[in-house]
Amino acid sequence: MVSNTHELRIRWGDVDYAGIAFYPHFFHWFDEATDELFRALGLPWERFFPDAKLLGFPVVEAGSQFFAPIFYGDLIRIVTRVTDIREKTFRLEHEVWRGETCCAKGYEVRAMVEERDGRRRARPIPNDLRQEFEGTS
Amino acid sequence: MVSNTHELRIRWGDVDYAGIAFYPHFFHWFDEATDELFRALGLPWERFFPDAKLLGFPVVEAGSQFFAPIFYGDLIRIVTRVTDIREKTFRLEHEVWRGETCCAKGYEVRAMVEERDGRRRARPIPNDLRQEFEGTS
Amino acid sequence: MVSNTHELRIRWGDVDYAGIAFYPHFFHWFDEATDELFRALGLPWERFFPDAKLLGFPVVEAGSQFFAPIFYGDLIRIVTRVTDIREKTFRLEHEVWRGETCCAKGYEVRAMVEERDGRRRARPIPNDLRQEFEGTS
Amino acid sequence: MVSNTHELRIRWGDVDYAGIAFYPHFFHWFDEATDELFRALGLPWERFFPDAKLLGFPVVEAGSQFFAPIFYGDLIRIVTRVTDIREKTFRLEHEVWRGETCCAKGYEVRAMVEERDGRRRARPIPNDLRQEFEGTS
Repeated sequence: MVSNTHELRIRWGDVDYAGIAFYPHFFHWFDEATDELFRALGLPWERFFPDAKLLGFPVVEAGSQFFAPIFYGDLIRIVTRVTDIREKTFRLEHEVWRGETCCAKGYEVRAMVEERDGRRRARPIPNDLRQEFEGTS
Repeated sequence: MVSNTHELRIRWGDVDYAGIAFYPHFFHWFDEATDELFRALGLPWERFFPDAKLLGFPVVEAGSQFFAPIFYGDLIRIVTRVTDIREKTFRLEHEVWRGETCCAKGYEVRAMVEERDGRRRARPIPNDLRQEFEGTS
Repeated sequence: MVSNTHELRIRWGDVDYAGIAFYPHFFHWFDEATDELFRALGLPWERFFPDAKLLGFPVVEAGSQFFAPIFYGDLIRIVTRVTDIREKTFRLEHEVWRGETCCAKGYEVRAMVEERDGRRRARPIPNDLRQEFEGTS
Repeated sequence: MVSNTHELRIRWGDVDYAGIAFYPHFFHWFDEATDELFRALGLPWERFFPDAKLLGFPVVEAGSQFFAPIFYGDLIRIVTRVTDIREKTFRLEHEVWRGETCCAKGYEVRAMVEERDGRRRARPIPNDLRQEFEGTS
């Protein structure tokens, strides 16, 4: 399965009064890391909206454990892997590293939604995306 | 165990290009709902910082399932319950409702961290907070 | 001209390491206060999207001065006034109050944009909106 | 005077229902660009907190004009310049470019605040920072 590493800097607005990254921001970073995985595959999300019918990859479940605090100014690496592909959803796992410390592990389960005849519904993961994820394309 | 209901309006900045609430925002709302639970108990978080030693209730784990999309302009209710109190952590469960539809269910596991002699460490949940949570104070 | 007052609570995620509200959040609150002004007039923004042609009221200019810090837990009031209506833009001014202290004064200049034949363009402020703003409807 | 260019990618969470970047995000990017200017100078903000007395560079005024929309997936450049240094404040100007298009021009006026004997107050811009800004150090 494919994986990608994305690096980002922790900003002043990311940390709270206690001086550590505010936890909802990790989910913003997971979304960003997923975006970068798609880019690394040559599959920017915007490619899936040529006819304004596909509405992205909405998250149907997400979670994270937080092991060590992250501070203002830290440079972190997010290692993202596709770990499971079902008929209509796929699962991404994210590890957040600062140097040799794994600070958090999280995941997202995402679906694909398209709009047809004015109605929105989940659609099966297309084969070409499945093959990209499996590294067999 | 205690519970609280918090109502909030979905804003323009909360929704994405697909017109639905961007999932990391749910975790901002969970944090806000926890804040409101503390206020409803007469326990605003700032009370725990009288000597700048206690550094809040950092989240050690969080997650959510998303069942139905939430749209710009929606008025949602978040029902928050304390469901478990361990020695050094407690668990909050959040349900996000729009009218009669439960749109998401999430949780947070939080610890208490204090700073003493320049070092930060988890501390046991104090008895008075435990009793407030249990509704036996 | 119309005005509206909107109250909101400062959350843990709103303040930075110095313990004061991070300045970009004021612009989120200005957007929220503008949203509430429209609601108070019985003009929720979503009313302007019946045919998915009108794309909101994009901000063409915004600014703020900050006079006094705002802290976690503060309850603030935002007083919003429409102060100028041009052919294709209108100006909103926002004052942020905590008790008797005016903590910030800001403004937004907004346009209306619609999509027609696949192209987006500014459109004149409609007369009924102008009359609502002037309180003469 | 010094300047710096910072590049960043527009994320899914940055754009609104109309498909364009939500305006408060520009101020998050201005803060990030200022952070990067300090890093480029070898002056990370955290250097100014060795004794937990200096509380950062709070913004006392900020504003922006928006000329052209920014879309999901865009790669933008923020060109930041220090343009004025007063006794207790300095001014930064930010230009947001996408390719050859200048999409926004904004500014921040920042002060320095320190805490001494439990009281916070503005302090004069130190000479070494002034010299760094002027490129004469």
